Amino acid sequence: MIRDLQIEDRITELGLKMPDPPRPLGAYLPVVRVGNLIFVSGMLPRQEGKLVSVGKLGQELNLKEGQDAARLALLNGLAAIKSEIGNLAAVRKFVRLSCYVNSTLGFIEQAQVADGASNILLAVFGEAGRHSRVSVGVAELPGGAAVELDLIAEVEPRE
Amino acid sequence: MIRDLQIEDRITELGLKMPDPPRPLGAYLPVVRVGNLIFVSGMLPRQEGKLVSVGKLGQELNLKEGQDAARLALLNGLAAIKSEIGNLAAVRKFVRLSCYVNSTLGFIEQAQVADGASNILLAVFGEAGRHSRVSVGVAELPGGAAVELDLIAEVEPRE
Amino acid sequence: MIRDLQIEDRITELGLKMPDPPRPLGAYLPVVRVGNLIFVSGMLPRQEGKLVSVGKLGQELNLKEGQDAARLALLNGLAAIKSEIGNLAAVRKFVRLSCYVNSTLGFIEQAQVADGASNILLAVFGEAGRHSRVSVGVAELPGGAAVELDLIAEVEPRE
Repeated sequence: MIRDLQIEDRITELGLKMPDPPRPLGAYLPVVRVGNLIFVSGMLPRQEGKLVSVGKLGQELNLKEGQDAARLALLNGLAAIKSEIGNLAAVRKFVRLSCYVNSTLGFIEQAQVADGASNILLAVFGEAGRHSRVSVGVAELPGGAAVELDLIAEVEPRE
Repeated sequence: MIRDLQIEDRITELGLKMPDPPRPLGAYLPVVRVGNLIFVSGMLPRQEGKLVSVGKLGQELNLKEGQDAARLALLNGLAAIKSEIGNLAAVRKFVRLSCYVNSTLGFIEQAQVADGASNILLAVFGEAGRHSRVSVGVAELPGGAAVELDLIAEVEPRE
Repeated sequence: MIRDLQIEDRITELGLKMPDPPRPLGAYLPVVRVGNLIFVSGMLPRQEGKLVSVGKLGQELNLKEGQDAARLALLNGLAAIKSEIGNLAAVRKFVRLSCYVNSTLGFIEQAQVADGASNILLAVFGEAGRHSRVSVGVAELPGGAAVELDLIAEVEPRE
């Protein structure tokens, strides 16, 4: 539990705040566990349940705003994981981050947008935060969100 | 086997019909098993092998038609799983449903489209049908399909 | 090691060449291993680190050029796997290939583009190269790449 506090402390030290665990937008679960793998559903940049980053990169939103959106979506993902496994210290490793960027034609900095999320994983989890990644530019996202991301993480075995 | 009949009975009771297992559109397999996980390839809304839902949500197709397309793509996925593992009762849990919606600019109801598939998983499989999900809006899909979806499921160990 | 040489020989016999392992475009790893699964990050058509296939299918690039791009992205993926596990003969099975095709409106041959990668997996790895697949058409890709693909593979247990 001490290590978990440390992880949340690091989030606070970065000037960030874990949101409430996100409520799904449909007939699915935020998180499913299979063996020691956790699959996190597509997360959006939501604060107190409300979508706060809407629009396309390269049009309504610039790169910095896209990175902020990716970071907020990631924090929603961490909240979802915590609500499933109890504490974030039980994450052994982040395996995969997929980042879908709502992109206008000609916007090609999807990797830089995704770094908004990846850098937080590294800063908060250190070695365990080093993940593989996929970043693509999509035509639209649910609710017009700027960014959606999903995660796969490996967690400690159940006792 | 009794439980398998029950699962297919539930599909029938919903007024639905399992299609024939889908033939791949290229040099790949419909389903690959690794350990107790089943990875289902991208499934399209096909009936007797033919694509029946073509076009973009927000343009040629409305929400209801998109949900029908998602449901049909899901049934193709169930047929693919059944052809691999013999009976659907051997599915322990659906882990992940990813739903790619062929979307015109401005169509942002990808989550509602995906519910067309998610609701069937819940109705047919109950607790085992509760899955994590990713829904995004894409620029185009193979053959102009309205929806594509892929699945990851956990199945019973081989005897 | 003999089998590994055979695998690389087959790549050479096909007139292909493994590129250097790709350097990530951001704060992530090219490959993450969890248990016996290898998750390969989104790979682009890069040669000596430089993106060589840029543009949209159906506009700047034709189908043949898209298939070449998919093949080159795949070779980057194989180089990434080799740098992680030491030799490609330790791949037991390719589980999943996801192919994101930079598509103009109206281009619907994503499956044929992806075959550019799938056919190489089959030619080089034989039975172990038979994979499940997802192909979608996206609005944009990092750097304007024509194709991005990611892989999941099962490898031999560590000794």
